[in-house]
This record gives sequence, C-alpha cells and structure tokens, in this order.
Amino acid sequence: MLFMKLAIVVRKDLGMSCGKIAGQVGHASVMAYRMASGTHESDQWYNEGQKKIVLKTENGESLAIIASNAERNCIQVNYIRDFGLTQIEPNTLTCIAIGPDSDEKIDSIVGGLKLL
Amino acid sequence: MLFMKLAIVVRKDLGMSCGKIAGQVGHASVMAYRMASGTHESDQWYNEGQKKIVLKTENGESLAIIASNAERNCIQVNYIRDFGLTQIEPNTLTCIAIGPDSDEKIDSIVGGLKLL
Repeated sequence: MLFMKLAIVVRKDLGMSCGKIAGQVGHASVMAYRMASGTHESDQWYNEGQKKIVLKTENGESLAIIASNAERNCIQVNYIRDFGLTQIEPNTLTCIAIGPDSDEKIDSIVGGLKLL
Repeated sequence: MLFMKLAIVVRKDLGMSCGKIAGQVGHASVMAYRMASGTHESDQWYNEGQKKIVLKTENGESLAIIASNAERNCIQVNYIRDFGLTQIEPNTLTCIAIGPDSDEKIDSIVGGLKLL
C-alpha cells in the first residue's frame, strides 16, 4: 500500500519569524488540501492523518527549481505568496506545497532537503 | 462588513522546533477549514485570503482555558494532538485552531495573547 504525504518547502533567506513561517505553512496546507479535494490522493492523505514534512531551501531560485522538478513529474504544486502586510515585501514567494502524493513520489523531489 | 480570521494558539512548553510547530499549525489550519467547510464563515475566510494569526501560550493548562472560553462563545475549536512519532509524547495537545470566525469574535478570545 502507498502512503501519502505533503511536503512544504520554505525559503530561509527572508528572515521570517517562526510564527510567520507557521502561518505560511498553514496557508500552504489549506491550499494543497483544497486544490486536491476530491482526488484519491487527497482523501487518502487526510484519512491517514495528513502526514506533513516541513523542509527548507536557501532562496527563491532554489525553491523555483524544486517546484519545476515536481511539476515535471506531474505532482501538484501550490505557490504561496505573501500579501506583505507584515515582515516581507508584497507578493513574495515564501514557500511551496508539493502533494499530497505518494511517499515515493514526494521523496524523489525533496529527498535531498533538510528539515526546517 | 465583517472580516474573518483563524487564530492558532501554540503551546510553548513542549520545546518543539520551528519546523515541528509549522507542521502542527498546518494540521490545525486544514482541520479548521475542513470542519467549517460549507459554512458562510469558512467560505468568506477562504475568499478573503485565509487570514491567520499564530499566537503562543505557556502550557496545556492555559491552552485548555482559552479553548473553553472559545467554546462557551460558540466559536469552532479544533484540538491538534500529535502522534508522537517525533520530538514529543504521543497524543499530546500541541495547539488549537479557533475559528474561522469574525475578527471581533476571535479577538475577544485571543486579544490578550502574544504572537508566536
């Protein structure tokens, strides 16, 4: 049996506080769940307890490369941009959600990244 | 017009890493969205850009008091417990989601708390 997970990759170059990061990861999680809603992957992921991993990358450029890899492998990517009301410039890409999809597919994209 | 928001209150006594906290806030956000799904509050909150605030409290006891205040005021509360696979004991209450509901109702419960 395949197990499902959601990976969220956060940029570390923006100097966001822990609370700010947590809020962005919250946005990413809801977007990923909503966009995948009704699919087998989403239902299974939710029923398994919505497993998540939160990872980090250096900057926006490396984040874009990771997103592009995921999209080429037909894995759902959601891009989270901040309104910029607090801490950072408007419309800055802060993190991406990859999945939910099978452990194996997610690991093939983010396997080399470190936990936040 | 009323604006909607979701408040997530995190316990600070568990020594969770920033990545761990972010994952718990992700769980809380999806639970709150799903449990309120189809309600006026949830739709409006999502369409306004899913405004979130992430706050902190000292420990499980103070978290329980905040949750109880919200429930007495008929505001949706979702309780996030960790499976305990990493960092903390199984079934530990890590955070709560309050709302989504109107700014005014949410502030009446969490107005005294500090941002994480």
